[in-house]
Amino acid sequence: MASDLAFSIVCVWSFVSPIVGMPPFLSSRAQLLNDDSSYATGSNVELKGKEWAVNDLLMMLKLEEISEGLKTSLYPPAVHFFQTKASIDKSGVFEIIRIMPKGAILHVHDDSLVDLSWLIRNVTYRPGCYMCFTRKRGNVIFKFHEKEPAADEECDWKLVKTERSNYVDADEFDNMLENNISLIVEDPTNFYKNQYDVWSYFTDFFQSFRSLFSYSDVMQDAYYEGLRQFHEDGAQFVEIRSALPPVYDLDGTTYDEEYTLGKLEEANIMFLDDYSDSMGSKVIYSRTNLLMRNYFYVYLCHCRDKDRVTMKSKIELAMTFYQKYPDFVSGFDIVKHENLYNPLLFYWEELQMPSNTGVDLPYFFHASETNWQGSSADENLFDAILLNAKRIGHAYGAVKHPVLLNELKKKDIPIEISPISGQVLKHFYDLRNHPASHMLSHGYPVVVSSDNRAAWGASPASHDFYELFMGIASVKADLRLLKQLAMDSIR
Amino acid sequence: MASDLAFSIVCVWSFVSPIVGMPPFLSSRAQLLNDDSSYATGSNVELKGKEWAVNDLLMMLKLEEISEGLKTSLYPPAVHFFQTKASIDKSGVFEIIRIMPKGAILHVHDDSLVDLSWLIRNVTYRPGCYMCFTRKRGNVIFKFHEKEPAADEECDWKLVKTERSNYVDADEFDNMLENNISLIVEDPTNFYKNQYDVWSYFTDFFQSFRSLFSYSDVMQDAYYEGLRQFHEDGAQFVEIRSALPPVYDLDGTTYDEEYTLGKLEEANIMFLDDYSDSMGSKVIYSRTNLLMRNYFYVYLCHCRDKDRVTMKSKIELAMTFYQKYPDFVSGFDIVKHENLYNPLLFYWEELQMPSNTGVDLPYFFHASETNWQGSSADENLFDAILLNAKRIGHAYGAVKHPVLLNELKKKDIPIEISPISGQVLKHFYDLRNHPASHMLSHGYPVVVSSDNRAAWGASPASHDFYELFMGIASVKADLRLLKQLAMDSIR
Repeated sequence: MASDLAFSIVCVWSFVSPIVGMPPFLSSRAQLLNDDSSYATGSNVELKGKEWAVNDLLMMLKLEEISEGLKTSLYPPAVHFFQTKASIDKSGVFEIIRIMPKGAILHVHDDSLVDLSWLIRNVTYRPGCYMCFTRKRGNVIFKFHEKEPAADEECDWKLVKTERSNYVDADEFDNMLENNISLIVEDPTNFYKNQYDVWSYFTDFFQSFRSLFSYSDVMQDAYYEGLRQFHEDGAQFVEIRSALPPVYDLDGTTYDEEYTLGKLEEANIMFLDDYSDSMGSKVIYSRTNLLMRNYFYVYLCHCRDKDRVTMKSKIELAMTFYQKYPDFVSGFDIVKHENLYNPLLFYWEELQMPSNTGVDLPYFFHASETNWQGSSADENLFDAILLNAKRIGHAYGAVKHPVLLNELKKKDIPIEISPISGQVLKHFYDLRNHPASHMLSHGYPVVVSSDNRAAWGASPASHDFYELFMGIASVKADLRLLKQLAMDSIR
Repeated sequence: MASDLAFSIVCVWSFVSPIVGMPPFLSSRAQLLNDDSSYATGSNVELKGKEWAVNDLLMMLKLEEISEGLKTSLYPPAVHFFQTKASIDKSGVFEIIRIMPKGAILHVHDDSLVDLSWLIRNVTYRPGCYMCFTRKRGNVIFKFHEKEPAADEECDWKLVKTERSNYVDADEFDNMLENNISLIVEDPTNFYKNQYDVWSYFTDFFQSFRSLFSYSDVMQDAYYEGLRQFHEDGAQFVEIRSALPPVYDLDGTTYDEEYTLGKLEEANIMFLDDYSDSMGSKVIYSRTNLLMRNYFYVYLCHCRDKDRVTMKSKIELAMTFYQKYPDFVSGFDIVKHENLYNPLLFYWEELQMPSNTGVDLPYFFHASETNWQGSSADENLFDAILLNAKRIGHAYGAVKHPVLLNELKKKDIPIEISPISGQVLKHFYDLRNHPASHMLSHGYPVVVSSDNRAAWGASPASHDFYELFMGIASVKADLRLLKQLAMDSIR
């Protein structure tokens, strides 16, 4: 192909040092391009042996897919994931990325660790599984119980087995369940009107997912299976944010956070026994932020006492867990839609407790998962950095804060980037405009992750790596970027 | 309103220096916010006298509109302009921006200087005006002629006057013409499938607009009326990119570039006579790039000779114009869809001619009006800077090139930002993700402009200033930003 040749020429002209005898204009140009690309993530990586051949193949395929995208304007990263997943799955670049080692995947929620297909095709077949479509929203939720649970405000419970038997084809029934829980729709742009709209379906998803995941007999299996899926997709390690939700038994008994943590740790140990080439997983205890706030209202008065007391007890719990399970608990986070819930500033005194009492508790905050520069959601970034967060989730606004960018580089705080999450939750449409593009070209530390991938049917890591490599990074970014990202995530 | 009060508190906490006795965490936080915002465009501006009161009002209204947007997720800058123009027109912030002086508007094309309403409701009423709907695309084009022009490959010509008289209501007919030419549609997201799709309608728009604008009796009036509209909207000066299209007469005679230039200069002088408080306008001679190229193909061979010869002659012409009309011609540009047409690199030898021969010819290039980082369209930025461009149009990729950002600051090269243009041409949807957001927060030089505003029914400047102020800039950006932008544009 002529375009392959041309691309090689472009690459050569971009990366080579000025050649003796080159006209001064072209020489200055090559120097400027050289200087510029030397900042990019991966530019200092050296490829070895066979990696050169892989890179040649990777870049040939990348160029072909870009050329095709330029012709059709249907370039996958510029189009919604739901509408391009099928074509990504056929992509040659994706095939290479799929089999590559991806290092550590560091921003994953427990209620998306395992895919929906497994939950439905394995868990809902177990005895004692009841289901209902909620009266308000129509999303399906499940309950394991000894006998048919009594109807309640939200539900008339039916045995899944009976419901399934009413269908000629069990597969059709299972697909119906999966479609009900998943966010995937044919025309996401029009179906989800705005960020709040997609978040309301996202909340339904959590309710459905957790109703299966929180059953005591399921949780360990699901955690193990999730780790297996990540391992199969090239992850060497997974760090999982969990609210440590109350596990329930067949008779309705529920247990506390430490019981849940114990269940997960056992699953992790079983997994490590079976997969000795894996580094397994750790858990970030993630407190769900419960108090909705007035828009832009930053509480500086004493009316916030009740919620602060609860948060204080959760931070104390996190400190205990971190000391008691040093090999399994890595730290603490607060999660929820930032534009609607209390900012970190609300809890600044509680969040200083560990450092004030000389107890170590690493923080891994979500911050600035918002398009509103200068809002209190955006300013969570300032607090995350002041509170010495080890990594920060999303941080869409970081590129708009020069002083914070310096801090991220100086303190080596990576941003956890989940490309598809940002698209599905309507922060971006065309991923080529994702702010991580700026971070990669300037060499700020980032790690790639899949967030709540089960909600949108993405693979544990490969789809997000594909979107980043093809859409967020430069056209010229090559294997060196992917290698750097994997190395950084492990470090 | 409680939220107003809250916002004031946020503002105070953000901008004040640390207060003696403040808890150390809050003091460090205030310091960090302070340091960060000190980089932003406008942060060093001082407000005087009445400006303080205007700023209070402006920020109160801004907060109200943001609060409303947070509630509904229908915040104008986050939604397509076609669907929010009506609500912007009712906005209190817009009302203030509308009456504010806006300095110089420096990125406007001659074929969008005057609005469509005037062209249709004035020009098409003139004698000898014929119209046709083109056979291929169905867009309406016009021709002034002594008698009915013969049918040709594209057209069956009809007298506008006769066609209009077939309608009961002339207004209905005029609206039909305006809708045909304009890009405005009810549901732009679904109507325009991708960038190429919207560009094909954009090309139709140019054809329609120019068919009226290029008639010798119309050009001067249209230019004058355009300047009047910009003046009325608060512009003190306008710099207009023009290809100096061949003007035609009733008998079909056409004239050369210098004739067109003369016509425009006369209109400018008439305007300055009538509006002594204005600084009038200047023209950037903008050569339309004609040769489509293979994707990513950067020509380094000699097959490009023919097009280079033509370009050389146009640059020579620009050099002549710049010397002969120093008060009216400000420089040279090359325009066209960058992803499809030759990059600047193609003409690097020709473009060096002025500096090689010691003749001054300022450049004002379009560069990186693309989402493709690392493509040759994106790399036009490198060439624009190496060729000492005085300003650069769009430059969407600039934020992804650390070395170029330094150059822009060091050499004080402003980027010309046209927010609505980027949205209509499908580079961005939510303007809060516009890369200029990064430029404003880091204090890189930018100017605001309206590009081809007639195609999308925007005002000469106010709508773009609104989108920038409310969407691209920080929630906290205030009158000082607007003042800085106006001052920078004049400088």
